[in-house]
Amino acid sequence: MKEHRTELRVRYKETDQMGVMYYSNYLVWFEVGRTEFFRHEGVVYRDLEQTHKVYLPVTEAHCRYKAPLRYDDKAVVVTRLAETGRSRMTFEYQVLKGGEEVTTGYTRHAFVSSKGRPVKIPDFIRNSFSV
Amino acid sequence: MKEHRTELRVRYKETDQMGVMYYSNYLVWFEVGRTEFFRHEGVVYRDLEQTHKVYLPVTEAHCRYKAPLRYDDKAVVVTRLAETGRSRMTFEYQVLKGGEEVTTGYTRHAFVSSKGRPVKIPDFIRNSFSV
Amino acid sequence: MKEHRTELRVRYKETDQMGVMYYSNYLVWFEVGRTEFFRHEGVVYRDLEQTHKVYLPVTEAHCRYKAPLRYDDKAVVVTRLAETGRSRMTFEYQVLKGGEEVTTGYTRHAFVSSKGRPVKIPDFIRNSFSV
Amino acid sequence: MKEHRTELRVRYKETDQMGVMYYSNYLVWFEVGRTEFFRHEGVVYRDLEQTHKVYLPVTEAHCRYKAPLRYDDKAVVVTRLAETGRSRMTFEYQVLKGGEEVTTGYTRHAFVSSKGRPVKIPDFIRNSFSV
Repeated sequence: MKEHRTELRVRYKETDQMGVMYYSNYLVWFEVGRTEFFRHEGVVYRDLEQTHKVYLPVTEAHCRYKAPLRYDDKAVVVTRLAETGRSRMTFEYQVLKGGEEVTTGYTRHAFVSSKGRPVKIPDFIRNSFSV
Repeated sequence: MKEHRTELRVRYKETDQMGVMYYSNYLVWFEVGRTEFFRHEGVVYRDLEQTHKVYLPVTEAHCRYKAPLRYDDKAVVVTRLAETGRSRMTFEYQVLKGGEEVTTGYTRHAFVSSKGRPVKIPDFIRNSFSV
Repeated sequence: MKEHRTELRVRYKETDQMGVMYYSNYLVWFEVGRTEFFRHEGVVYRDLEQTHKVYLPVTEAHCRYKAPLRYDDKAVVVTRLAETGRSRMTFEYQVLKGGEEVTTGYTRHAFVSSKGRPVKIPDFIRNSFSV
Repeated sequence: MKEHRTELRVRYKETDQMGVMYYSNYLVWFEVGRTEFFRHEGVVYRDLEQTHKVYLPVTEAHCRYKAPLRYDDKAVVVTRLAETGRSRMTFEYQVLKGGEEVTTGYTRHAFVSSKGRPVKIPDFIRNSFSV
């Protein structure tokens, strides 16, 4: 399965008063991992929206928290393309710190037009992602 | 099942360039809903941490996105206590706009000490929540 | 000087590991105060963008931090229209907790078209705001 | 004047419905620039808090917005130590995109103890920063 690794560091802004990364921020990290997965496969997500008028809203998101991340921690987001449908994709994520899995999750996305109508996954994406 | 309704309005900060509320922000709204659920049942979550040194980190979060929320939309977060274990609780959420369900989700929480060790749910919480 | 008061409560998300509201979040609170100031004067900022295609990007922001806000604190954002030019406005803010001033700030805004060109402040806004 | 350059890329989360980076996020970028400035000078800000129990809350922040940043833009935050007092420091920031200045700003900080009392800037910081 194709995967891409992106390194990120916990910002002070991303911590909360429990002294750990606040739980919603992992979804932001997943977004960064996903964008870099796309770029690594030759697809710039920005161009997808701007040039091709294709959008990938999230239809479902899930996150399992096993261990906390703390301020200034360096961690790796591993992004994998888990499933591809006619107009849908599912991505899986692992957040690793020092090789240890701290968080896992997935996001499901629909491919839609600028009017929000489902569209087939464009061929150039299928080709780039080999799916 | 006990439930509590909290009204929120989408901030400009919470939108993204797709013109809708960014997906991680629903988890923040769930947090607000949960806090107000606690308060309505007579438990101030802040005191739980400060006075009782009991913390409720999230162990799992899930969100299903059915329809978008847009800037300045008023919506209601319905929070329900779905499950109670020895040292765990699960909350379910619905985000409603004009009565229509736009998002659903759940969060699972562990009750832990300041050192992160699991602790039994305190009796005063069980009494307040009638669980 | 016209002013409007909006009550807000510090979200867990808005705290950082210092146990206080993170400094950039005051600018978000200013945004909420500004939106409610507009609404109170009869102008829905959302309509300004959607119907009138007039936008108010920020050109300058300033914040002075005197005392911290903590999780679950209730505070009031006082928003005042401080200056009005041909195509500019300046708003001033005070954040009060229990009557005590914890933060002050201002934001300057340009009125621009959807293409980012400066436009005169629309008459209906001048009338609503009596400026 | 000592300076440090940190490269950042605009996250989707950081955009708003105007299609540009939301104004408060520049303060977060300043935080990242500041942290990396410290690290580059041999001071890990995390250790300052954890080991030395010295904290640097912000007392004032300012930002001037000249041109927008858009999703996926790469930009550089240039951080400079502008002023050093007995227990205060001021940092200046420039955000550059393709060499062009898009944002400038500054933040003022107090050095305080864990109880919030002003403390002298520790010698090892003065030595590291040569001030």
